[in-house]
Amino acid sequence: MRDVAIIGVGMTHFGELWSQGIRDMFAEAALKAMDNAGIEKIDSLYVGCMSSGLYTKQEHLGSVMADYIGQRGIPAMRVESACASGGMAVRAAYLEVASGMSDIVMAGGVEKMWDADDGSAILATAADQEYEAYNGVTFPGLYAMMARAYMHRYGLTLEELAMPSVFSHKHAVNNPNAQYPYILDVNGVLKSSMVADPLRLMECSPITDGAAAVILCPLEIAKNFTKNPVKIKGIGSATGPIALHNHDDLTRLDAVRLAAERAYKMAGANHSDISLVEVHDCFSIAQIIVAEELGFFDYGKGGKAIAEGQGSYGGKVVINSSGGLKAKGHPVGATGVAQIIEIVEQLQGRAGKRQVENIKLGMTQNMGGSGGSSVVHILEAV
Amino acid sequence: MRDVAIIGVGMTHFGELWSQGIRDMFAEAALKAMDNAGIEKIDSLYVGCMSSGLYTKQEHLGSVMADYIGQRGIPAMRVESACASGGMAVRAAYLEVASGMSDIVMAGGVEKMWDADDGSAILATAADQEYEAYNGVTFPGLYAMMARAYMHRYGLTLEELAMPSVFSHKHAVNNPNAQYPYILDVNGVLKSSMVADPLRLMECSPITDGAAAVILCPLEIAKNFTKNPVKIKGIGSATGPIALHNHDDLTRLDAVRLAAERAYKMAGANHSDISLVEVHDCFSIAQIIVAEELGFFDYGKGGKAIAEGQGSYGGKVVINSSGGLKAKGHPVGATGVAQIIEIVEQLQGRAGKRQVENIKLGMTQNMGGSGGSSVVHILEAV
Repeated sequence: MRDVAIIGVGMTHFGELWSQGIRDMFAEAALKAMDNAGIEKIDSLYVGCMSSGLYTKQEHLGSVMADYIGQRGIPAMRVESACASGGMAVRAAYLEVASGMSDIVMAGGVEKMWDADDGSAILATAADQEYEAYNGVTFPGLYAMMARAYMHRYGLTLEELAMPSVFSHKHAVNNPNAQYPYILDVNGVLKSSMVADPLRLMECSPITDGAAAVILCPLEIAKNFTKNPVKIKGIGSATGPIALHNHDDLTRLDAVRLAAERAYKMAGANHSDISLVEVHDCFSIAQIIVAEELGFFDYGKGGKAIAEGQGSYGGKVVINSSGGLKAKGHPVGATGVAQIIEIVEQLQGRAGKRQVENIKLGMTQNMGGSGGSSVVHILEAV
Repeated sequence: MRDVAIIGVGMTHFGELWSQGIRDMFAEAALKAMDNAGIEKIDSLYVGCMSSGLYTKQEHLGSVMADYIGQRGIPAMRVESACASGGMAVRAAYLEVASGMSDIVMAGGVEKMWDADDGSAILATAADQEYEAYNGVTFPGLYAMMARAYMHRYGLTLEELAMPSVFSHKHAVNNPNAQYPYILDVNGVLKSSMVADPLRLMECSPITDGAAAVILCPLEIAKNFTKNPVKIKGIGSATGPIALHNHDDLTRLDAVRLAAERAYKMAGANHSDISLVEVHDCFSIAQIIVAEELGFFDYGKGGKAIAEGQGSYGGKVVINSSGGLKAKGHPVGATGVAQIIEIVEQLQGRAGKRQVENIKLGMTQNMGGSGGSSVVHILEAV
């Protein structure tokens, strides 16, 4: 396989983008990424999107977006793996470059969520429709069961469960693209409305419009485009049970662990080499369990460690310097790509007040459903 | 890039499969393909599907299907490019094997269409939602405009326009998996109800449930699994305008021509090397224009040539020995994979009464929308 690098990134603001349709948002992110890479032409396009059919009645996004960004004629396809669609689009683009089929490939992601009036039902199509969604459970309910199981087994308190959100908001204050860049304290979390006991509104990622795009090329030509390309050093992807009731253990996410093992193996690295990580904190409990599955904390120890600040600046590893899904926002198809962008900008020293110092390697972890799929990338400055 | 071969194929019957849900159908095709390849484990999975969200309220098919075929843990994603989703899933699987990332990769496709009561509106999400579908045009209307333009310019008669359907049904009689394996004569076409003038019901592909799957591996190990693997000798993929009104010429499909040029170049072949081809005859006029774009007939000559039998046994090239989308059926996400299966079985000499003799190379052409995307594969027995 050829080594692959990222040479350009671009994204929209994340939030309620009432004045932009799905193609406007994607075009903004894509053209920013091309501008960042200094290119006017790409060879192939992957568009990560969970459910443009249900959200906007528009499938066939590969064709739509290739056309609207002025690249009509190139190969293009949509990639879908629920909320991991963006990360999987990057993986697919990686394979196209690594194989030698194409040189300059864009991986983008987009979701236009605010125009739909049945957002929770649409998101629930990422769960097991026949055994979960049809019977009325949506994702807050599924993750609430995971949270209850974790609290019961490991003695996590409600105050500790609230802390991932507190840190995410603290980080987001310094992210100009974040949907909710404001300080939130533990009382703010605990006084927010209950969504699915024990998860309160401020422990759930929001509904978000947004798009993000990155440009990949062979590492050997990357410096023709930018003085500081970022190498994709490891990729791991895995599936888990589509339904929560088929998890062997409600406090574990097997797909995350498997994906991380594969990425670490490919990169020749382990968790101690990672300085910062963007994790898929769709709910507060997800950040905790994921951080454990990635190896940063022992099982049952992640909740308390994060509450003590071990997942923030000066801690063991900086988790979600961008603000994460909770505070930066979660336009589901764009999230995995935006995670990559955060790590790229950090590795390039362009993260402003969010900058993490002395980074060795950066990592992203993107997830679909209640652990039905996950994809992990390990990135390195070159 | 590593050379890649197909070592196993499997599909369901195409038709109204009221007793099978989307996962049952996919599992049947997938397990048949694994059985055909003599394997019990795959390394990665691609699922081509256009719109499981709108048809069945189930996204995240990579995870669902990996789980339901007993392969939980492997990487899996859904690929979508409207009605070209199946062909693009094969392309994505090809890249994963060619790159060296994985050895044994399944590309499947599925669509469960009969359960939905607004099928035409769902299919129209493959067109330009904002400029076409929102204003009421669906695919029969779009292709009817192409047919009228072609008839006007080249003098094609209604009787000639009907002939692709006549030959498709003649071929389908010998296909045990076909939805409509019966003889249809030109009067049967011309007396069927009008859908969108000049296209009548018997010139439109049907609503179909079905699934198909193929197994890919590096060519160098393919004979460990089967004595007659089929090499993927060329792949070409391209996009065109998402909206019909942006075509430079209503009688042309630029994405098909571009995809074919790329596939021919990669294979070191041209149309005269192709003995049989499965084309995307979503409507009678599509078969004619596609056959021209692939190089088999000059522009404006394809309609009359096909009407004279040049696209059937004994003619210039056998088009749609399977019966094609019109008579075999068109479960949109599965179609591109099923096209590959027809060519594989022909190259292996397993096509029974449909067998084409003395095949040099076989070809498939899968298309999304009104030419918004297309993907072409060239296959060779090894």
